[in-house]
Amino acid sequence: MPLYRQLEGWLRDAITTGALPVDSRLPSSRALAADLGVSRVTVGTAYAELESAGLVVAAVGSGTRVAPVLPTTAVGAAPGDRRGGTWPAWQGSAETSEPAEAGPRGPDVVAFTGVGDPAAYPVAEFGRTIRQVLAREGAAALSYGPDPAGDPSLRRTVTQLLASQGIGVPPESVLITSGSQQALALVCQVLVRPGDTVLVEEPTYDLALRLLRAAGAQLVGVPVDGHGLRVDVLAELLERHRLLDRPRPRLLYVVPNFQNPTGASLSGSRRHALLELARVHGVPVFEDDFAGDLRYSGRATPAIKSLDDGGHVLYAGTFSKLLMPGLRIGYLVVDGPVRQRLVEAKQVTDLGTSLLLQRALDRFVTVGRYQTNLRRTGRLYRERRDALRSALAEHLPDAGFALPAGGLFAWVALPAGVRSDTLLRAARDRGVDVAPGSRFFLRPEDGAGHIRLNFAVQPQERIAAGVVRLAAAVDSLRVTPSGTSSRQR
Amino acid sequence: MPLYRQLEGWLRDAITTGALPVDSRLPSSRALAADLGVSRVTVGTAYAELESAGLVVAAVGSGTRVAPVLPTTAVGAAPGDRRGGTWPAWQGSAETSEPAEAGPRGPDVVAFTGVGDPAAYPVAEFGRTIRQVLAREGAAALSYGPDPAGDPSLRRTVTQLLASQGIGVPPESVLITSGSQQALALVCQVLVRPGDTVLVEEPTYDLALRLLRAAGAQLVGVPVDGHGLRVDVLAELLERHRLLDRPRPRLLYVVPNFQNPTGASLSGSRRHALLELARVHGVPVFEDDFAGDLRYSGRATPAIKSLDDGGHVLYAGTFSKLLMPGLRIGYLVVDGPVRQRLVEAKQVTDLGTSLLLQRALDRFVTVGRYQTNLRRTGRLYRERRDALRSALAEHLPDAGFALPAGGLFAWVALPAGVRSDTLLRAARDRGVDVAPGSRFFLRPEDGAGHIRLNFAVQPQERIAAGVVRLAAAVDSLRVTPSGTSSRQR
Repeated sequence: MPLYRQLEGWLRDAITTGALPVDSRLPSSRALAADLGVSRVTVGTAYAELESAGLVVAAVGSGTRVAPVLPTTAVGAAPGDRRGGTWPAWQGSAETSEPAEAGPRGPDVVAFTGVGDPAAYPVAEFGRTIRQVLAREGAAALSYGPDPAGDPSLRRTVTQLLASQGIGVPPESVLITSGSQQALALVCQVLVRPGDTVLVEEPTYDLALRLLRAAGAQLVGVPVDGHGLRVDVLAELLERHRLLDRPRPRLLYVVPNFQNPTGASLSGSRRHALLELARVHGVPVFEDDFAGDLRYSGRATPAIKSLDDGGHVLYAGTFSKLLMPGLRIGYLVVDGPVRQRLVEAKQVTDLGTSLLLQRALDRFVTVGRYQTNLRRTGRLYRERRDALRSALAEHLPDAGFALPAGGLFAWVALPAGVRSDTLLRAARDRGVDVAPGSRFFLRPEDGAGHIRLNFAVQPQERIAAGVVRLAAAVDSLRVTPSGTSSRQR
Repeated sequence: MPLYRQLEGWLRDAITTGALPVDSRLPSSRALAADLGVSRVTVGTAYAELESAGLVVAAVGSGTRVAPVLPTTAVGAAPGDRRGGTWPAWQGSAETSEPAEAGPRGPDVVAFTGVGDPAAYPVAEFGRTIRQVLAREGAAALSYGPDPAGDPSLRRTVTQLLASQGIGVPPESVLITSGSQQALALVCQVLVRPGDTVLVEEPTYDLALRLLRAAGAQLVGVPVDGHGLRVDVLAELLERHRLLDRPRPRLLYVVPNFQNPTGASLSGSRRHALLELARVHGVPVFEDDFAGDLRYSGRATPAIKSLDDGGHVLYAGTFSKLLMPGLRIGYLVVDGPVRQRLVEAKQVTDLGTSLLLQRALDRFVTVGRYQTNLRRTGRLYRERRDALRSALAEHLPDAGFALPAGGLFAWVALPAGVRSDTLLRAARDRGVDVAPGSRFFLRPEDGAGHIRLNFAVQPQERIAAGVVRLAAAVDSLRVTPSGTSSRQR
């Protein structure tokens, strides 16, 4: 079969199966010829054949595209397309938890959601670093790493960063993960079985709730106040568990610094008390320190892990918040026999995190550069936090708001009678996006009076503009003394 | 506090906690000064202070190093260091499955283990592509992606590659994962609960066995012959399950092309029969096509997924084997309600695969370039397969060996009386590494008579040299007619 026929046949298949969708552009004949190592004439002939079959349309200036209406004889139904068909019984009733909710996007939307500000990512420097790694290490950087626990050099770098934060651990305790999210997922996989009780702060990080629920855990909430998790309530709860002879909780998930969503930090005395409870009751503590080094005021409190001399605490950190989330590199610090089981879990889950990215990150993150970036980012985000405070004071004076000492999030108590879910819709109508409090509670209803605002993602002038829009949305929902909303007056 | 004091304090902490281990080299004062944005004098003064405290040693030519013996007052015990201490009860007895077994390394070792040949990775081209992505997309490439199921453009590219292999699916069916390993891990997470029965080929890919075991599955093996999985045995097994009213198996894990470890491929008629059994008995099929496009002889058989019009098959592929494993990018093709649950599992597990690598791969993998690379790699690996065949015929004529039509692995039946585990040690003593058959069976004993050789990882001359060493190891273990090994004569 001549080459052009083979090419034509392949393209015909791609078009009729929908792999090349209607209206998609085919490569230029020059590019495709170069790619395939064939002559331009071959490609041109194949394209001409497809055109005469009505499968593609060529137009001067816009290249060759898949025809908007395909000849019916050539089109089969793709398996994913069938609607209303029956699926095998094991596929169940698609009982998903909450769908991944994406807020509105676009340049006009002021989004108080998401993570850090892309404008703060060190893109060019990191690009140079990747180039250096590929130039010096070549194919080695594109292989599996020698150790499923992560690149040894990056693990050493992590211990140096941790030491600068008062956590002294050897590199053997560090397990590199795909973000701190995977650190929690692995711990879940190793320690939590369906039906196990897991303790969480309430409110807490929504994707931790979803992960733990997906693992079949029975979640029990412990309330958070301005000084973090209520350790007194935790003590009562554990004691009750013990007296009733119920199986011990399998995990305590806690975010001690600039908690997500409340921004509160666990006080030093509570950290000690929490660790003591974990010891006495034999409950592992998962310490999620997703943004502990992003501090804007006050002094750091030692990590719970730094108080732990007995392998009670699993500590997770990440480079996502400070550097760039697209890397997806975080780490878990863990001591004791469970460490080996977690390394095994990491290996069988994905054979290790991309070595190229680990090597590039290791080369990029000298302690000095990390500290420099931290200072720069900290300055930027602190200004934004303060801008949010001022804007809220001016435009939403009756909203409750405690200034967080660091991190990314502010937790706002809405004026009486305004519900966060209703507000979400009203706010989106006005081009502003927030996270409704309901996402962060075991019973969504408990979060009806709060919203979470990420102040770090955008410059100050947009923050101010966003709060003005938000205030307008709140005003439209305010309950008047007679009990009807102002909108209905 | 003066700057040099702050720096000194920080370094002191790093040294005393062990984060900067004994004998490790500190950065040059010039490099550290540049990193921190301070003067070289500041760094020099801090280093001098540390030196007079006995914490570092400076030597001309080799820079400044952490002192080999630290002053005892400055050294605390790192938590990971305690040996013989007691760990909390929940840490259990460290009941790990097999430890991650790393064979011998070094330039003198001929290793018939691992995956593809790093020399075949398109390192320079890929480096250029990453640079282009960072230059054109900037910070966007370092953010979370817009969709936890993966970059939409890469998903489209995957459908085009699949279409060229006869699998017609829309991009919405594709979920990008961290290698095909994670595709299986996610399916495990969503479909398999502890105690569930899972059917596997026997022998099969060892890390699939370890993953499924870690998930608490009860594994049941179905034998493989020269035409792949014995579908007749599968039919009996499923029928028995049904008659005994036992819960249906939760999953059937199968590698239809160039099976790992046997190299056998599932015949076309068996593919149809297998799918029909899956339909009738309501068992989901996980089709692991880790190297299906690496074919060296014969004609391709359609993927089981391509026969499936009802969402019975979950199909996994990967870029690891053909391009480079360090990327850690693979994909799962899945239709029906379970798809949304798998996307949710991906999201809560790691918030998605690195967008930077997804974008770079998408830009890199035009269909033409993929096909070119496939042809080049295929030629290379076929020569190596043939070199292995010749070497075995010459040096180990009484070993059984069926020529695989593609993939990476040859499955070798050892001469009578030679056990693979003993051979592994004898071979390593002679500088050659193999995978013993015991790894691939539910009862390791069943694999005592086989070894798996990866013929793709090294050039032909090393293959020949390795087989010579292997033959020597085998000869040292041969059982003589009188029943003692030749070594003992």
